[in-house]
Amino acid sequence: MTTSLSAANREALKKISTATLTTALFKRGLRNVFIQGVFLLNKESPRMVGEAYTLRYIPAREDLDTLGAFEGRGHPQREAIEACPPGHVLVMDARRDASAATGGDILMARLMVRGVAGIVTDGGLRDSTTIEKMPWPAYCAARSAPLNLVRHHAIDSQLPIGCGGVAVYPGDIVVGDGDGVVVIPAKIANEVAEEAASQTIFEDWVEAKVNAGRSIFGLYPPSPETRAEFEAWKKKK
Amino acid sequence: MTTSLSAANREALKKISTATLTTALFKRGLRNVFIQGVFLLNKESPRMVGEAYTLRYIPAREDLDTLGAFEGRGHPQREAIEACPPGHVLVMDARRDASAATGGDILMARLMVRGVAGIVTDGGLRDSTTIEKMPWPAYCAARSAPLNLVRHHAIDSQLPIGCGGVAVYPGDIVVGDGDGVVVIPAKIANEVAEEAASQTIFEDWVEAKVNAGRSIFGLYPPSPETRAEFEAWKKKK
Amino acid sequence: MTTSLSAANREALKKISTATLTTALFKRGLRNVFIQGVFLLNKESPRMVGEAYTLRYIPAREDLDTLGAFEGRGHPQREAIEACPPGHVLVMDARRDASAATGGDILMARLMVRGVAGIVTDGGLRDSTTIEKMPWPAYCAARSAPLNLVRHHAIDSQLPIGCGGVAVYPGDIVVGDGDGVVVIPAKIANEVAEEAASQTIFEDWVEAKVNAGRSIFGLYPPSPETRAEFEAWKKKK
Amino acid sequence: MTTSLSAANREALKKISTATLTTALFKRGLRNVFIQGVFLLNKESPRMVGEAYTLRYIPAREDLDTLGAFEGRGHPQREAIEACPPGHVLVMDARRDASAATGGDILMARLMVRGVAGIVTDGGLRDSTTIEKMPWPAYCAARSAPLNLVRHHAIDSQLPIGCGGVAVYPGDIVVGDGDGVVVIPAKIANEVAEEAASQTIFEDWVEAKVNAGRSIFGLYPPSPETRAEFEAWKKKK
Amino acid sequence: MTTSLSAANREALKKISTATLTTALFKRGLRNVFIQGVFLLNKESPRMVGEAYTLRYIPAREDLDTLGAFEGRGHPQREAIEACPPGHVLVMDARRDASAATGGDILMARLMVRGVAGIVTDGGLRDSTTIEKMPWPAYCAARSAPLNLVRHHAIDSQLPIGCGGVAVYPGDIVVGDGDGVVVIPAKIANEVAEEAASQTIFEDWVEAKVNAGRSIFGLYPPSPETRAEFEAWKKKK
Amino acid sequence: MTTSLSAANREALKKISTATLTTALFKRGLRNVFIQGVFLLNKESPRMVGEAYTLRYIPAREDLDTLGAFEGRGHPQREAIEACPPGHVLVMDARRDASAATGGDILMARLMVRGVAGIVTDGGLRDSTTIEKMPWPAYCAARSAPLNLVRHHAIDSQLPIGCGGVAVYPGDIVVGDGDGVVVIPAKIANEVAEEAASQTIFEDWVEAKVNAGRSIFGLYPPSPETRAEFEAWKKKK
Repeated sequence: MTTSLSAANREALKKISTATLTTALFKRGLRNVFIQGVFLLNKESPRMVGEAYTLRYIPAREDLDTLGAFEGRGHPQREAIEACPPGHVLVMDARRDASAATGGDILMARLMVRGVAGIVTDGGLRDSTTIEKMPWPAYCAARSAPLNLVRHHAIDSQLPIGCGGVAVYPGDIVVGDGDGVVVIPAKIANEVAEEAASQTIFEDWVEAKVNAGRSIFGLYPPSPETRAEFEAWKKKK
Repeated sequence: MTTSLSAANREALKKISTATLTTALFKRGLRNVFIQGVFLLNKESPRMVGEAYTLRYIPAREDLDTLGAFEGRGHPQREAIEACPPGHVLVMDARRDASAATGGDILMARLMVRGVAGIVTDGGLRDSTTIEKMPWPAYCAARSAPLNLVRHHAIDSQLPIGCGGVAVYPGDIVVGDGDGVVVIPAKIANEVAEEAASQTIFEDWVEAKVNAGRSIFGLYPPSPETRAEFEAWKKKK
Repeated sequence: MTTSLSAANREALKKISTATLTTALFKRGLRNVFIQGVFLLNKESPRMVGEAYTLRYIPAREDLDTLGAFEGRGHPQREAIEACPPGHVLVMDARRDASAATGGDILMARLMVRGVAGIVTDGGLRDSTTIEKMPWPAYCAARSAPLNLVRHHAIDSQLPIGCGGVAVYPGDIVVGDGDGVVVIPAKIANEVAEEAASQTIFEDWVEAKVNAGRSIFGLYPPSPETRAEFEAWKKKK
Repeated sequence: MTTSLSAANREALKKISTATLTTALFKRGLRNVFIQGVFLLNKESPRMVGEAYTLRYIPAREDLDTLGAFEGRGHPQREAIEACPPGHVLVMDARRDASAATGGDILMARLMVRGVAGIVTDGGLRDSTTIEKMPWPAYCAARSAPLNLVRHHAIDSQLPIGCGGVAVYPGDIVVGDGDGVVVIPAKIANEVAEEAASQTIFEDWVEAKVNAGRSIFGLYPPSPETRAEFEAWKKKK
Repeated sequence: MTTSLSAANREALKKISTATLTTALFKRGLRNVFIQGVFLLNKESPRMVGEAYTLRYIPAREDLDTLGAFEGRGHPQREAIEACPPGHVLVMDARRDASAATGGDILMARLMVRGVAGIVTDGGLRDSTTIEKMPWPAYCAARSAPLNLVRHHAIDSQLPIGCGGVAVYPGDIVVGDGDGVVVIPAKIANEVAEEAASQTIFEDWVEAKVNAGRSIFGLYPPSPETRAEFEAWKKKK
Repeated sequence: MTTSLSAANREALKKISTATLTTALFKRGLRNVFIQGVFLLNKESPRMVGEAYTLRYIPAREDLDTLGAFEGRGHPQREAIEACPPGHVLVMDARRDASAATGGDILMARLMVRGVAGIVTDGGLRDSTTIEKMPWPAYCAARSAPLNLVRHHAIDSQLPIGCGGVAVYPGDIVVGDGDGVVVIPAKIANEVAEEAASQTIFEDWVEAKVNAGRSIFGLYPPSPETRAEFEAWKKKK
C-alpha cells in the first residue's frame, strides 16, 4: 500500500491533539472517528502516528483454540506481529471484549523492536505492568491476564475492521495521545493534518490568553477582531 | 462448499431442541455455541436448519455509507441476499449493535422466496411487524427502524465471523427454535444430530413420566434401572 | 404552539412505517431519530402520530419524593397528564432508567380519555397488562411495577429533552409503529411526510414484485427501467 | 419454617397487582422490592403467590461442572426441585447471568406437578416454548438454551440470596403478575396484603371514574371530598 | 442564590472525606448522594467544595449542532463557563454518555482562572492530559476527544438535573475527593458538615488505634467504654 | 482448613505473573480463572498470594441495614475482618455492584496489621486514597464512597462464592499482580506453581532474546532447536 501521508505531516501529527483532529474531521462530516473505550498504558510514551495494519479476531472455539495453534507458522496473530510494517500501527478488532488478552509483553516488545509505531486493541493486554514501562504507545480496553485462546481466535489481517466502534481501513492514519485514538481516512490525512496544525497554533494562543484572564466570549471561537489580532501575532512570531 | 449434513439429519434437526443440542455439544467440549441476545420474530415459523452463509458489517463511515452505496451491483449486503444458497441460513455479524437495522421486509421476502432457510443477525431488523407474519424464521437482536447505513457498513461475505458472541464458520450447521439459535461445527453435525435425536426420544419419555407424577431422582439423569425401563419401552414402541 | 403538520399529512403518517421515515430523515442528514430501547405495549393499538409534549424526570431524593408529593395541585407528572393537548404525544425523559415506573393504568386511561395520541417513556410503565389491552399506543422501556418515587422525580414540562438517546423538542412530530418511535423535527414534518408517503407506495409495489419472485438487483433500489415501470404502473392505478 | 401468611391474605394477594404492593412497601420505607430484569413466560398462567424457597448458583468451574454432577443424589439444583414445598416459590440466584439456563421443561414440569407455586430466576430458562404453555408461572431473565453447567454451579439452598438485585430471605412472600415479581418481607406480609387489598378496591373505583371522563385532580390521590365519596360508595356496595 | 454554607463549614468540608459524608447523609435517610461513574483527573488538585451551578445537555441533532452554534453569544455551554460564580462547582448533566467531550482545556482554564471551585460532568473531557496538570479539580466519566457537538447539545442552566444518577439542585453543596463526588442538599449542608467534622476526628483516632494493633470489636463502632476513652482523649488534645 | 500450598511455592508465586498462571490453568482445562473488572489500588504494594477466605453480600434491605447493624458482635463483615487468618486473602462477593463500598481504610488497616495477605472485592472500596498508600494489595471494582449499607448486606463467610464472574472456594489460592487476580483451585496449586515458575524462566529468556532483536517465529512458542538452546542456557546458568 502506498502511503499518502507526507513526512512533514507525520511529524506534525505527533504534536496535534486528538481533540483538535476530531474537530477537523467533524467539519468534513465525520462524527465517529474516536475509538471508544481504550486507554494508553504508558503515559510517558512518545506520541503514536502511523498507518493502520489490521488484525481481526472472532470468538474462540474450544476444538480450534488450543495451545498447539501457535506452533509453527501461520497463526494470524503471530504473523501480524512480524508483518506489520515499521511506522504502522497494529489495530486489533477484538469485538470490544476485554475479558481476555490479545497480546502480552513479548509480542509488544517484538513490535517495538521492529519499529512498529504502536498498538490499539479493543480487547485486553496482559503483562501490562511490563508494557507500561516500555517507551512505546499501547492502547487497550483493559489489563487482562487470560491468554487470547480463552476468548479470541485470530482469523485474518489487513481487512477493514471495527475497533472500539470505529471503522478502520488498512492504511488509515491512526493517531493517539493521552485522550485516546483517532482514525483519519487515508485520503484526507494530509489536509486534515495541515488544517489541524494551523488550528493548534491558534488554540495554544487562545489558551495563553485565557490563562492571562481573558473571557472566552469573542475569543473562542474568535470574533473578526480576535481573528485579526491572532493573525497579526502569528505574522510577528 | 460440499454439505456434510445428511438429508435425514437435516429433517431430524427440525425436531430437536436447541437445548438438547447444547448438551450434545457440551459433551464434546464446546461450551459457547448459543448465539446470545437474539430472539425469533415469528413464533409460528417453521423450524430453522441450514448451513451458515456469513455476512460481515463494520461500523459505518459517513462519506462511504450514503444511499448511493446501494445502487448498481456490488453492495455486499444486496449481493448476499441474492447469493445465499437455498437451504442455507444467512448469518450476519453486526457487532451486537442493534441500534440500526441490518435488513427489512423486502430483503427478508426475497430470502424467503429464494428458499433460504432463515436469517440470524445480532443487529436489528426493520419492518418487524411484516416480517413476523411471514412463514419464515428470522432472528434479530431488536426491532430497529433505522436503515443500516446510519451504523453498519456491509463489507464481505463467507468469512468466519462472530454472531452474538459465537464463532460462525461458513458451512456450520445453524439450528433455531423458540429458545434461540445454536451453531454446530460442520464436521460433527451428523453425529451430533444423531445423538441428539436419540436423547430427544429419551427426554420426551422422561417428560411424560414427570407429568404422570414421578420424581426426577433416578429418572433424570436415569439410574441403570430407569435406563433399562426406557430401553424396554423403546423396543416395544 | 401552532401545529405545522397538515391534517392530510397527519393521516398519511399513520400509514407510513418508521423504517421509511428514518430513510427520509437520513437523506436530510439526520441519523439519530429513532428512540432506542422502547417497545409498544399494545400490538393492536392504532398507529401513533402527534406533536411532542415533554415531561422531564431527574433522580428521586428521599426527602422530596414521598407519597405526599402527589397531593393537591402542582406535581409536574400529574399536571402533564391533564395538560398534554389532545392529538399530542406525551414524551417522558426518564434518563433511560426503567427500574421504576413513570406511569400506570390510571394515568394512561386519563390520557386516552382526554384524546392524547399516545405516550413514549424511556422509563418503565406499571400495570402493563391493563395498559396493553387499551386501544391506545404506549411505548416504554420495561414493564416495571415500582412507583416512580423510588427512582424518578418529575421536574418540568415542555422543555427540550432526551428520550431513548434522541433529542425531542416540544412540537416535534412523533410517529410510532411496531418497530418503535421516530421523532421528526417540526419544521420538516410536512415535507418528510409527503416524500415518505410516496416512497411507501413504491416500496409496496417492490414488495409485491419480490413476493412474485423478482430479484432485488435493479429493483431495490430501482434502475431507470424499473423506475419507469413503476411510474407507468402508478399512472394506471 | 412456619408460614405467617393467612389463607385469606394468600388468596387476596392473587388479586393485587405488584404495582400496588410496591406502593404499600414504599410507605414502610422499602424501595428495592421489585426483581429487576425478569419476565413472565406464560401470560395465561395463574397468579403467583408463595413463600420463597431459595437456590444459589456460583460460576461454574470446568473440572467440577461436568454431566456426571447430576448423577445420583445430592446435586443442589435437583435436590431443590424435589424439596421446595408445595405452595412455595422457587427463587434462584444466578448472579443475573442469563447466558445459560438454570432449568428446563422437565424440571419445571416436576415443580408444577409437585404443587410448587412458581419459579423466579435471574438466569435463563431453556425449553421456553414448552414452559410457556404450562398453566404455571415461570419468570426468567432470558430464553437461554445452554445447560446450566456451562456457566452456573448450584451450590446451596435456603440461604438468603439476591435475585434481580433484590434481597430474598427464605420465607419471604413472593408475588408475581404480568409486570413482574415483588418480594414482601415475611413479617409484614399480612399487613401489606390487607392494606393493598383495600387500596386495590379504591384504585378500581378510581379507574372507573377516569374511564368515565373525570380528571385526576382531586381524584388520584383523593381530596377529602373524593375520599368521602368513595367511602359512601363502598358502604353501599 | 443566597449561600447557606458558613465559611467555617466550607473550610471544614475540604478536610472531610466523601465517605464520611455519605454516612452522615445516610443517617438522614439519603442513600443516593454519590455521583456514580466519575473520577478525578488531577490527583494532586486541591479539594473541591462549592455550590452547584448546573448545565444540562440533551442529545445533539445534526442540523442544530454545527460549529456555527458556538459563534456570538448565547450558546448555553459557553455562557455557563462565564456565568458560574466563583466558589461554585459547575455540574453538567450529559446523560451519562461519555462518548464525546463536554469541555476541554481552554474552557477548564477559563473556569479555573475565574475562581470556579471545580467541575463535575457525567460526560467526557478532552485535552485531559493538560487538564490533569492544572491545580484544579475536574471530575469526568472518561477522557474523550470528540467535540461535544457530535453527541451533546447544551440546552439550559441552573435547572435541577441528574448527574451520574444523583439529583443535583442549583445551590446544593458539592464535595469531591479522591473517591469521587458527593451532593449535599443545601438546607442540611451546615449540620452535615459539623457532624461529619466531628466524626472525622473520631475516625482518625480509630485509625491510629487500629494501626497500633487494636481490634475493631468495641472500637468501630465504639462501645460505651471506647466512646468514653475517645472523649477523654479529645478533651486533653 | 489445611493449607496445601508449600512455603516454597508460596514464595515462587510472588514472582509469577497472573498471565503465566492463566496459561498453566488453561492447559488443565480451566478457562475462567481471572476475576473480571477489578484493579489494584496500590501499584507499589507487594505481590498478593494467599488462601481465599470468603465473605458474601446480598442486596441491602432498608429495615435491616441500618447503622445499628454494626454494633456489638456478629456483623458478618466485621467478624470476617477479625477472622480471616494471616496469610489468607479476603475475597468478597458483592454481586459485581460497585455503586457502594464493601470496606474502607479502617477495615483495610486492620486486615493489614493482622497479616492478611490482601483483599479482593467486586464491589467498591472507600477512602481509596488512603488505602492506595498502604504497603498492601487491595483490589476493587471502583473507588466508591457510599457505606456498604446503602446497597450491600454482609450475610455469611467461608462459603463458595462468585467474585468478578469466577468461582472462589475457601482455600483456593488467590494470586494478584498489576494485571489483576487469578484463582487457582487448591488441589492443583502446587503443580501449577511449579510449572508456571519454570515457564517464567523460559519467558524471561524469550523476552531478552526479543529485546535483542530476534523474531518470534521458532522462538515463541519454541521450535525444538530453540527449546534445546534454552535448556543449554539454563544448564549453564
